[in-house]
Amino acid sequence: MASHRIYHPHPLEAGSLVQITGDEAHHAVRVKRLEAGEPIELLDGKGHVARAKVTRTLKLPKSDAQGPWCVEASIESIADVPVATPRIEVCVSAPKGDRLDQLIDQLAQVGADAWLPLECERSITEPSASRIDRLHRIATDSMKQCGRAWALQITDPIHFTDAIATPAGVRLIVADGSGEPFQESLTHGASTLRLIIGPEGGLSPRELSAARDAHATIARLGPHILRMETAAVLAAALCRGTRA
Amino acid sequence: MASHRIYHPHPLEAGSLVQITGDEAHHAVRVKRLEAGEPIELLDGKGHVARAKVTRTLKLPKSDAQGPWCVEASIESIADVPVATPRIEVCVSAPKGDRLDQLIDQLAQVGADAWLPLECERSITEPSASRIDRLHRIATDSMKQCGRAWALQITDPIHFTDAIATPAGVRLIVADGSGEPFQESLTHGASTLRLIIGPEGGLSPRELSAARDAHATIARLGPHILRMETAAVLAAALCRGTRA
Repeated sequence: MASHRIYHPHPLEAGSLVQITGDEAHHAVRVKRLEAGEPIELLDGKGHVARAKVTRTLKLPKSDAQGPWCVEASIESIADVPVATPRIEVCVSAPKGDRLDQLIDQLAQVGADAWLPLECERSITEPSASRIDRLHRIATDSMKQCGRAWALQITDPIHFTDAIATPAGVRLIVADGSGEPFQESLTHGASTLRLIIGPEGGLSPRELSAARDAHATIARLGPHILRMETAAVLAAALCRGTRA
Repeated sequence: MASHRIYHPHPLEAGSLVQITGDEAHHAVRVKRLEAGEPIELLDGKGHVARAKVTRTLKLPKSDAQGPWCVEASIESIADVPVATPRIEVCVSAPKGDRLDQLIDQLAQVGADAWLPLECERSITEPSASRIDRLHRIATDSMKQCGRAWALQITDPIHFTDAIATPAGVRLIVADGSGEPFQESLTHGASTLRLIIGPEGGLSPRELSAARDAHATIARLGPHILRMETAAVLAAALCRGTRA
């Protein structure tokens, strides 16, 4: 069983003492009932994983804006986990409602590196700033749950025209039922894969044609029509592959 | 654009006139505003796809238990769509809440043939009869949306011991992080693939050992720990492959 994981987006240094407050401390103390002496892992979401030991838990004065609970821990060692290759960037519009939360959670699980909210002809919604905050929390929760050392990045919205204007070294793959079956060899030798997934109703004929002009590979992901979030997750999973 | 699809789990015969009532008729008349002359597709969920034309829509007397709307259509032709090979059976426990709905929807999209609710040491919930009714509706809605001709089957719960006691010709694959990376060659030559996915916390050591004794292949699906429903969907998608 893995140690309890805590997201701590601050510099981590072996031998130092850290104080964790806010939601992470509340969850650790009130839900997980962590106590002095227990091992924990601190993740900064940028590849650093600290093995630490709880030294004490305490209740701060109520005036503290971070909430009352605090976990104090001493860092024993730090592992630097390299970022996975290839980098996998998933460009897909925000689906409606809870399906966006699910998309972020599943993209994190299958090993995507970044979600780029795609603006294209048929996309309908754009997440609000408060929604984006919530999505970041989902991404860090998923990171802890699935054992990633890097958090899924969530970028500013990107227009379709910019999404397909990729620099050299970035391979463009468009998931669409009109393409050839996806093959693992599509991923070979690329340092970055940028995946484009159309919204409900698909990319427009003009967009598909522009993607072809930009030397994108059009790939189909299976026998049936997929919802946009299933297509995005499956495309990322196929590109990441099944190796550890 | 595909014709409007209607689930009609009754015998279909070319040249005959059918009357569709209930929710499907309500949706067709009140939401999709179908009118006489429009082409539709009728799916029985068992591989028969009828091309039909609406002859009229009408409001039945209120006393009718099926609800007031009726779509009358004449069947022009019927296609028999063979069931996909290999057959893909997914044994996984019911996750909590909405995640079960999502599981059924995504299993349908990626081309699984059946969901077998798995009873194992660490599974926690068993869906109620009313829940199962709702899941059947999700499965038929997904069938219409993603263009399947066969509905995802939902079986009675199956105990782990029975799930791994497969007859000859059924290949057993257990998704678990302790296995070798999944490879497409695992699916070659099998007429039926039975996939076993552990619940939150995984299969117990005793269950994993019993699966090995039953000649199951243990396969890992990617670099990170997957939620049970993501693992189930990804396993089914990998087994179905990307070909149409």
